[in-house]
Amino acid sequence: VTNHNLSSLLTAVREGNARAVGRAISLIENAAPELPTLMRELAPTTGRAMVLGLTGPPGVGKSTTIAALVGAIRKQGQRVGVLAVDPSSPFSGGALLGDRVRMQQHALDNEVLIRSMATRGHLGGLSVAAPAALRVYDAAGCDLVIIETVGVGQAEVEIAGVADCTVMLMAPGAGDGIQAAKAGILEIGDIFVVNKSDREGAHAVVRQLREMIALGQRMDGDWKPPVLSLVATAGEGVSELLAMIGAFRNQAERSGRWQQRRLDRARREVQSLLLENLRQQVSVAQSVEMERLAIAVRDGKLDVHSAVKQLLTDSGAAAPLLKDGVALVKSGSDEVQRT
Amino acid sequence: VTNHNLSSLLTAVREGNARAVGRAISLIENAAPELPTLMRELAPTTGRAMVLGLTGPPGVGKSTTIAALVGAIRKQGQRVGVLAVDPSSPFSGGALLGDRVRMQQHALDNEVLIRSMATRGHLGGLSVAAPAALRVYDAAGCDLVIIETVGVGQAEVEIAGVADCTVMLMAPGAGDGIQAAKAGILEIGDIFVVNKSDREGAHAVVRQLREMIALGQRMDGDWKPPVLSLVATAGEGVSELLAMIGAFRNQAERSGRWQQRRLDRARREVQSLLLENLRQQVSVAQSVEMERLAIAVRDGKLDVHSAVKQLLTDSGAAAPLLKDGVALVKSGSDEVQRT
Repeated sequence: VTNHNLSSLLTAVREGNARAVGRAISLIENAAPELPTLMRELAPTTGRAMVLGLTGPPGVGKSTTIAALVGAIRKQGQRVGVLAVDPSSPFSGGALLGDRVRMQQHALDNEVLIRSMATRGHLGGLSVAAPAALRVYDAAGCDLVIIETVGVGQAEVEIAGVADCTVMLMAPGAGDGIQAAKAGILEIGDIFVVNKSDREGAHAVVRQLREMIALGQRMDGDWKPPVLSLVATAGEGVSELLAMIGAFRNQAERSGRWQQRRLDRARREVQSLLLENLRQQVSVAQSVEMERLAIAVRDGKLDVHSAVKQLLTDSGAAAPLLKDGVALVKSGSDEVQRT
Repeated sequence: VTNHNLSSLLTAVREGNARAVGRAISLIENAAPELPTLMRELAPTTGRAMVLGLTGPPGVGKSTTIAALVGAIRKQGQRVGVLAVDPSSPFSGGALLGDRVRMQQHALDNEVLIRSMATRGHLGGLSVAAPAALRVYDAAGCDLVIIETVGVGQAEVEIAGVADCTVMLMAPGAGDGIQAAKAGILEIGDIFVVNKSDREGAHAVVRQLREMIALGQRMDGDWKPPVLSLVATAGEGVSELLAMIGAFRNQAERSGRWQQRRLDRARREVQSLLLENLRQQVSVAQSVEMERLAIAVRDGKLDVHSAVKQLLTDSGAAAPLLKDGVALVKSGSDEVQRT
């Protein structure tokens, strides 16, 4: 990408051109060298889009729900983006392909931007790549961006970290999802939705969720996560869900939680990318010192903790620099340290 | 844990006491303060156990296969450990519970140590916790340690990073596993096993795998990953699998790959824990500088890349220290840098 090309890419992204958005996200996926410039140029035109996280176990109807949401939002005349994040499993490739097929109905709508993103092997994974991709959608004039992950690991926790509002989707009979999931999801969801609510057992799932939420006693402001019913395939309950998302936003903006979450997100982003920079340097480490320590660890002559301690606090001159330097961002320090 | 208790824990671990091994692994899971001491004391008595990684998509019969392998190894009079790693999904809790039930037949055998380990939220995840747990088994006198993960993400790649030999399990009809998996697994498996090979379609799976391996042309020495057939429930093919694992070991030791892999593993461990130390300090960062940058990023006044650049190369005195310090382990440097 030449400077000229980058400049026309930026223009096209700002105009909401779907192909340009796709290309920009490819640059993110590939951690292309022009990425910092791209993100620097896009930054001033971001901050407007609402980011909606949508997650849940496989088979609950996430893509059908998103298709229904997109349809309803388009009727309001808003521009919408969908980012499907592949949680980097070689065994889950099929699901996203299916998603794309189900989203076909919106494929010819210029106001709907759809992209899936692989995070496998990406520097920093979801926590670095997804926020960047969301900014691209934002700069492209989307009013709402929906980010979707399959709930198979860290992904559903990380999605809550990048979203303004997280919708947790459930369905009756989806592999004892609720039982198994109770450990993690209650803290994540801002709105719970039981899809396929025309099926047997749906009412019980709603009741169980309400009980768990009541027991959970979340402590963020006075928002009590509601549990809604949905039949995404028939479009039943979609406008209620949209209204609830709006209600969440209003309440969060009034309470200040909205800006607080966005600050937390920005801080995590800076930390993730800083860490990623450190990680890259550490993982390509080939110094004699590192090699000597690795051999000692392999041969049982040294344990890993002692090896790291030697790297960090060795009496040599270089090592303490690392320690002092990191103190730059150390907890509790009131000022940037100047040694 | 007092010093006295730690010392009796160490003694009990070295004697192969199952409860002590379990307690030591709990200390690892909780990143307990006494962990560095524990690992330092255990280091000299490690390096003997062979680590066998076993992975594959859900439903291929991993736990049945492990139970059969454990039975066969016990007949040879060896001590064996099993570490089941939960890839931290709130939705996968059921699988490991099932594993434990299927392993019941070995529950009363003192020479079989079984433990599952959660890595969710663990500092550094699998890459830091699993090698430590494997060392505990090693110090407890296990001849072989089997580490199992469900193939649902990074886990099956990371398992190959900690194992001396990785067995990739497949089965006919397991959700198009092979098709979907071909991207990643070929580089990971040292031995491929098609379980449930009495079922229809098993022969086709074996043939497909052999073709893919032939096309894949792995470049590590002259080991061509074999494809074995297994009926784990009936014990058919188990002794062939054990013999193949032995053959792999012999060949790897002759070619030097065995020691090379263990060195790579030790290096990764040191790097992971070093990075983890850095990460902890970065993630608790509360400095005024970090907060100022996060606010600027949130408000679209600064992009994340520029924020990190400011942290790393700010003209102040502290920031360059971080950069120089990290250069300690920078690629290509022939010596530890002394500024």
